[in-house]
Amino acid sequence: MQQTFFGTRLPIIQAPMAGVQDSGLAIAVASAGGLGSVPAAMLSAEQLEQQLQVLQAHSDKSFNINFFCHTPATFSASRQARWCEQLQPYFDEWGISPDELPDGAGLKPFSHTMADVLAAFKPAVVSFHFGLPEAELLARVKQHSIVWSSATTVEEALWLEAHGADAIIAQGFEAGGHRGMFLTTDISTQLGTLSLLPQIIKRVQIPVIAAGGIADAKTVMAALSLGASAVQVGTAYLLCDETGTSRLHRQALQSDCAQHTAITNVFTGRPARSIVNRIIREQGPISSHTPDFPMASGAIALLRKKAEAQDCSDFTSLWCGQNASGCAPIPAAEMTNRLAAMLVKK
Amino acid sequence: MQQTFFGTRLPIIQAPMAGVQDSGLAIAVASAGGLGSVPAAMLSAEQLEQQLQVLQAHSDKSFNINFFCHTPATFSASRQARWCEQLQPYFDEWGISPDELPDGAGLKPFSHTMADVLAAFKPAVVSFHFGLPEAELLARVKQHSIVWSSATTVEEALWLEAHGADAIIAQGFEAGGHRGMFLTTDISTQLGTLSLLPQIIKRVQIPVIAAGGIADAKTVMAALSLGASAVQVGTAYLLCDETGTSRLHRQALQSDCAQHTAITNVFTGRPARSIVNRIIREQGPISSHTPDFPMASGAIALLRKKAEAQDCSDFTSLWCGQNASGCAPIPAAEMTNRLAAMLVKK
Repeated sequence: MQQTFFGTRLPIIQAPMAGVQDSGLAIAVASAGGLGSVPAAMLSAEQLEQQLQVLQAHSDKSFNINFFCHTPATFSASRQARWCEQLQPYFDEWGISPDELPDGAGLKPFSHTMADVLAAFKPAVVSFHFGLPEAELLARVKQHSIVWSSATTVEEALWLEAHGADAIIAQGFEAGGHRGMFLTTDISTQLGTLSLLPQIIKRVQIPVIAAGGIADAKTVMAALSLGASAVQVGTAYLLCDETGTSRLHRQALQSDCAQHTAITNVFTGRPARSIVNRIIREQGPISSHTPDFPMASGAIALLRKKAEAQDCSDFTSLWCGQNASGCAPIPAAEMTNRLAAMLVKK
Repeated sequence: MQQTFFGTRLPIIQAPMAGVQDSGLAIAVASAGGLGSVPAAMLSAEQLEQQLQVLQAHSDKSFNINFFCHTPATFSASRQARWCEQLQPYFDEWGISPDELPDGAGLKPFSHTMADVLAAFKPAVVSFHFGLPEAELLARVKQHSIVWSSATTVEEALWLEAHGADAIIAQGFEAGGHRGMFLTTDISTQLGTLSLLPQIIKRVQIPVIAAGGIADAKTVMAALSLGASAVQVGTAYLLCDETGTSRLHRQALQSDCAQHTAITNVFTGRPARSIVNRIIREQGPISSHTPDFPMASGAIALLRKKAEAQDCSDFTSLWCGQNASGCAPIPAAEMTNRLAAMLVKK
């Protein structure tokens, strides 16, 4: 088998999943020949440095560090108030005073401070969600790393290619977590992986990575047969030993509930795919009342904390793609081998 | 190559597309070794008999006759009035009086009258959309034909298997035209083909046919590699010589507009995928004001007629899947050969 264009033996990328994993999962995937990813969207510069130091102990391997690069919304007191009004019945139910609300601005976009940290470690791949950072920042990263970003439409893929991406992640409608969409907010534009992937491949010259619905060895092979240079897999890793997936999230993933996911904006203000739970059923899936990303997450975080303490996932973002049937509570290296099973036979 | 379980040389099914084709397209597809389909949802018993007589002249071939099997909604004057109120600005614009409105009840469900016609011709396959007809009617059809229906969720597939379907069409989110959904009206339950197909195959014992996003030889092969027994292709045939696709519909399919489709209920009251045009942008994609299927279509039909006469497709249902890149104005036999190109090499 040939090496991938990003330096690993297998064309299998573990998707960065903010909130549920760190370098531990990435290293386990790398040990089996895949590309491990570390989500940095919720990390401080110090935490990122720490993670990169851990990865450096495995310096023979390629890794992918992922950032969000949204334009931060300005805090709007009136939108926050409207959202809180919407959530008031839940606050009453759980005994929460809206005075306690954090502003939800924990998800910081990529910055020069982060670029400084990266420059010292030079990871093989740096990937972005929600487009690309501004030109100067992007140029800094490209000095030492190849740069990827997600496209959810053909138009976004063409934009990414024109603006300097070295590869494109074709993120199909099926994918769990945040939609990378950045040229549109209209969810009807989002294409299923089987439609998105071949249409992007036809139109761009750079490598295309398939994401969304890649859940087992057969779907890996199907994506590669369509011309993908690699696949990115998130959901299938969620139960793996090296993740920090919460007990409630694990329960949901292993239950029939996982058969019904929806693209919702109630957790952060941006569309993201989660297993359907009470807050999605009652306020979503798409609410016109949420503050802009990521301000919506403050109010929900409080509800989530109180509810989870009582074993209730009614307000928890249960990120999950449309095919959880590949999930298994096994080591991530073994999952990587499962996903690669039909490749190895070639 | 082995023969398919429905008697054709190729595992390629031309999707029945009510309103744009009849036996002419079906015969052309059959001549190339695929399974031709005739949509009967908009036919009278006499018209169906006529179509079957034409097919009989090709009696060495298998054909598929397709019916809708919805429970007809009762006409509600108040819902009709609410819908008309919503559409009043368009009526004013085009000089239409609501008195002229037909009731839109032209789409009739399968019936004993139709079953009588079928019994005389015994087509190889009879397929249904929106579930299955009631047990007695189904039993009549099964005496002479194998019966298929579409599933848009794993739950619907299990239901169809339990209720006597001989094969299941896994209709992914990407597919054009009406969603076959019948156990739910919640669009967030709809799965992309790459997620739906493998999960249905894992759970049922009967053959599964892939539909949605099958647009060229590579996507045909991808679906078969996932375990589909055959594929059903609609959109790619829409420009073929033997269709009756209107000039405005053809223009839209060949323009950039075809890159943005949406699942909308504005044309008939049931969710269906169309190229986004003015009525979808302004009233949809999902409106809470439409009368139940198929009553919504009456008001739109008048607008459509007036607008089309002036070369305007603002109110036309421009059925199309999420990948129109395979469309070509060629004979349907040639399109069938294109779709089969990688099969033949095997």
